[in-house]
Amino acid sequence: MKNSFSFVKFDHISLSMEIENEVKPDLLYIEVADRIESLIEKETFKIGDKLLSVRALSKEQGISLSTAFQAYYHLESKGLIEARPQSGYYVKFSPQHGREEPTCCKPIDEAVPVSLDEMIASVHTDLRARSKIHFSVSSPAPSLLPTAKLNKAVVQALRESEDSCLNYEDFQGNEVLRQQIAKLAFNWGGVLSDDDIVVTNGCLEALSLCLKAVTQPGDAVAIESPTYYGIFQVMESLGLNVVEVPSHSGEGIDLNYLEDAISRCDIKACLFVCNFNNPLGSLMPDENKKLLVELLTRKNIPLIEDDIYGELYFGKTRPKTCKFFDTHDMVLQCGSFSKSLAPGYRIGWAVPGKYKNKVVALKRMNNISTNTLLQEALSIFLQKGRYELHLRHLRKALHTQCLRYSQAIAEYFPESTRVTRPQGGFSLWIEMDEKIDAFKLHKQALKHNIGIAPGHIFSTQGQFQNYFRISYGLPYTERIDEGIRIVGGLITNYKT
Amino acid sequence: MKNSFSFVKFDHISLSMEIENEVKPDLLYIEVADRIESLIEKETFKIGDKLLSVRALSKEQGISLSTAFQAYYHLESKGLIEARPQSGYYVKFSPQHGREEPTCCKPIDEAVPVSLDEMIASVHTDLRARSKIHFSVSSPAPSLLPTAKLNKAVVQALRESEDSCLNYEDFQGNEVLRQQIAKLAFNWGGVLSDDDIVVTNGCLEALSLCLKAVTQPGDAVAIESPTYYGIFQVMESLGLNVVEVPSHSGEGIDLNYLEDAISRCDIKACLFVCNFNNPLGSLMPDENKKLLVELLTRKNIPLIEDDIYGELYFGKTRPKTCKFFDTHDMVLQCGSFSKSLAPGYRIGWAVPGKYKNKVVALKRMNNISTNTLLQEALSIFLQKGRYELHLRHLRKALHTQCLRYSQAIAEYFPESTRVTRPQGGFSLWIEMDEKIDAFKLHKQALKHNIGIAPGHIFSTQGQFQNYFRISYGLPYTERIDEGIRIVGGLITNYKT
Repeated sequence: MKNSFSFVKFDHISLSMEIENEVKPDLLYIEVADRIESLIEKETFKIGDKLLSVRALSKEQGISLSTAFQAYYHLESKGLIEARPQSGYYVKFSPQHGREEPTCCKPIDEAVPVSLDEMIASVHTDLRARSKIHFSVSSPAPSLLPTAKLNKAVVQALRESEDSCLNYEDFQGNEVLRQQIAKLAFNWGGVLSDDDIVVTNGCLEALSLCLKAVTQPGDAVAIESPTYYGIFQVMESLGLNVVEVPSHSGEGIDLNYLEDAISRCDIKACLFVCNFNNPLGSLMPDENKKLLVELLTRKNIPLIEDDIYGELYFGKTRPKTCKFFDTHDMVLQCGSFSKSLAPGYRIGWAVPGKYKNKVVALKRMNNISTNTLLQEALSIFLQKGRYELHLRHLRKALHTQCLRYSQAIAEYFPESTRVTRPQGGFSLWIEMDEKIDAFKLHKQALKHNIGIAPGHIFSTQGQFQNYFRISYGLPYTERIDEGIRIVGGLITNYKT
Repeated sequence: MKNSFSFVKFDHISLSMEIENEVKPDLLYIEVADRIESLIEKETFKIGDKLLSVRALSKEQGISLSTAFQAYYHLESKGLIEARPQSGYYVKFSPQHGREEPTCCKPIDEAVPVSLDEMIASVHTDLRARSKIHFSVSSPAPSLLPTAKLNKAVVQALRESEDSCLNYEDFQGNEVLRQQIAKLAFNWGGVLSDDDIVVTNGCLEALSLCLKAVTQPGDAVAIESPTYYGIFQVMESLGLNVVEVPSHSGEGIDLNYLEDAISRCDIKACLFVCNFNNPLGSLMPDENKKLLVELLTRKNIPLIEDDIYGELYFGKTRPKTCKFFDTHDMVLQCGSFSKSLAPGYRIGWAVPGKYKNKVVALKRMNNISTNTLLQEALSIFLQKGRYELHLRHLRKALHTQCLRYSQAIAEYFPESTRVTRPQGGFSLWIEMDEKIDAFKLHKQALKHNIGIAPGHIFSTQGQFQNYFRISYGLPYTERIDEGIRIVGGLITNYKT
């Protein structure tokens, strides 16, 4: 077998020292697995390579046999390596060996009104009525959520609040919850106080209130392309025009294009998802975020930063936010618990910087305040410090699912298919042969009770007719495997 | 004692027969009390009149001694009669003997933009920060709500739903809850199905979505004057102009004025609260509702009907809604559980007639869907049939509170004060000498930790500078009595 014994040694000493000094014992196996994974990613270990035996790994790394076994088991669960009977562990899959990444788009360079509602409504209705395998929903499966602990928090909120949470909450939101949300900023290096935060009915309401605070109907707003269709809908409902800025699946928004667009169009605000944009899963490097904020501050354009996926990173550390680089209080950051904890609770927030009073007033005008009970329940849950622990599990699970789905796509989809390699979030963005119409594919998939989100609804300019989004929020099962196989078959046998 | 024995006999036979045939035993005493109350209202029994002894009442009405006693006790709790030691029961108060009703307003007859936000925000901030006796909040005290039963429903929803209500709910709302809301229409003679209903984050969101569905920024919308300031805020946030139509404390909107206004201004929609308008508590007669709907249908103007107080009637039956008379599906009815069951849950609804698809789309654009858990909890609560029972208690309690507050106002406020005689809802609307500025009074009351809502925020045209609203949602206690006494003192000693 070629390459069978090409195992490259770790940097033995430095690795061991790092482990002893910094890593807690129960995370040791992950640390080791991550290092092996990154060597697979860099193709230092290629597909088919044999790995060290469990015993040899244990000895070389100065770790217990059980830790070494756990590390391999973890990599196996991610589908990156496989055990062959009486032989040992072999590299099975490398993200580099999946499909090529999709190409970037070329939007027209002017502001256009949004009118996607009919198409989005049609897709939505289809999916609700008929799909059984939801590749189209970008939220975590309930099995990935801390259901029991959340329920306990709800019951405690009922029991311990003075009036069973029957009274109106403060317009700006539950004070303790706002304190807890402020603390989350620590992870990206931010310093926020509870008074900086406005609690909303989910992230979409936060985006809507922030857009409304800084624009008038008819204004042009820059967004990335492709972008989550919910954002188009908010903009349509506010009568805003859209300037689409190309976004790369790797580094996110094209800053040069944006600078040009600003000089061409009278852009009144930007709305970007810099961390794991849906559907691309791209991650804008922190230095680009800094450049972006500097550019917009120079041009006096407020930036609405949708950071809903920021906590769902697959790398080592939480990426920074644009808010971190915000020297003039002009970034309106938005977030939510909908993607990471409790979609149905509909609790999100805005950190609107100098536009805060305007956003609070708009919140009051819209629906007075967000419901009292679920704010109280989340404040209890967060105060107990459960969120960080849960996020660690969720990130791991999503990363595993992302890799598993990618492998299935590499296996079942035609060679010409291109797929993103997300570094966080929920979605894979798939480019097919340009003759294939994703809306037709969506209709065909529905006949098999499978829901995918066609590229048509991710741009106002029909740029992604041969693209679609698959979300990997559902754990990988045989049913999911079957679903991906069916979609692959539909693409392969597609008749134009 | 004058009039001591002027007790007028009931129509003995017809009353008894009615009782035997129609009234359930446990409501007998209320039936008897209501009849006595209406005789007091009509001043057939005048203040100071002695009533039949308990024994004589029992004999005359063919009811048990205990039922007769309960009837008097009930009237006493309402403050209408009093027991004098070793003498019997005497009429103590008649609503007719309270203060005169306020005068009607004369708004300017053109559409004007709304710009009340600063004043409203200032009043709100004051009240939140400093008031301890909230005469300014139009919602029921938690002690009037079925807290334990609601909590039980929440826990059951957590326990019995497949995913602990963590997933997104349908955009249009929980189906069973919509069925239950549809059933409520039975009370006003309506026939609705679950598919007619859109669940929202409270009534204000329903109003906002409906307004948005039928207007464009800059359009003129007719509302009654005075009107609840939250409605001005929604209109301000949508960039709408206001045409104020005078409303009488008795019969509500002046239909002749409205017809004139329609011919003068290009009115694109009307938003009226025909049942127990806040702050007037007025009740538009059902025949006027019919005329109103016919007028607007003829003119092709959609009517947004805010029926949030419709269930809180003090009379015998639920008043009809405009929706009842809607032959062309042009009435967009809105309601909520915020005033009758659970303010903090923020669950309301719209019945948008032919504009339904538009309203559902706007709901989805705004915040996807209303939170899953509290919709499920309310659907469980309603399915158990608990709502009707609770409403019966709540109506009784509110009527009693209304009368008690009115009596205290009659006692403590200067002679020249005029006060409404609401037939339902939560508010008393008070007109003072025109030299008195209600905003200054509000500031003075705050120094005593008392919150009232000054008339300034109930009109865009500064028509109610010497008016204010007192809500009687809190049960009548010594503290409340003391609060009203203090406000009365402030008015009496007001220095211009």
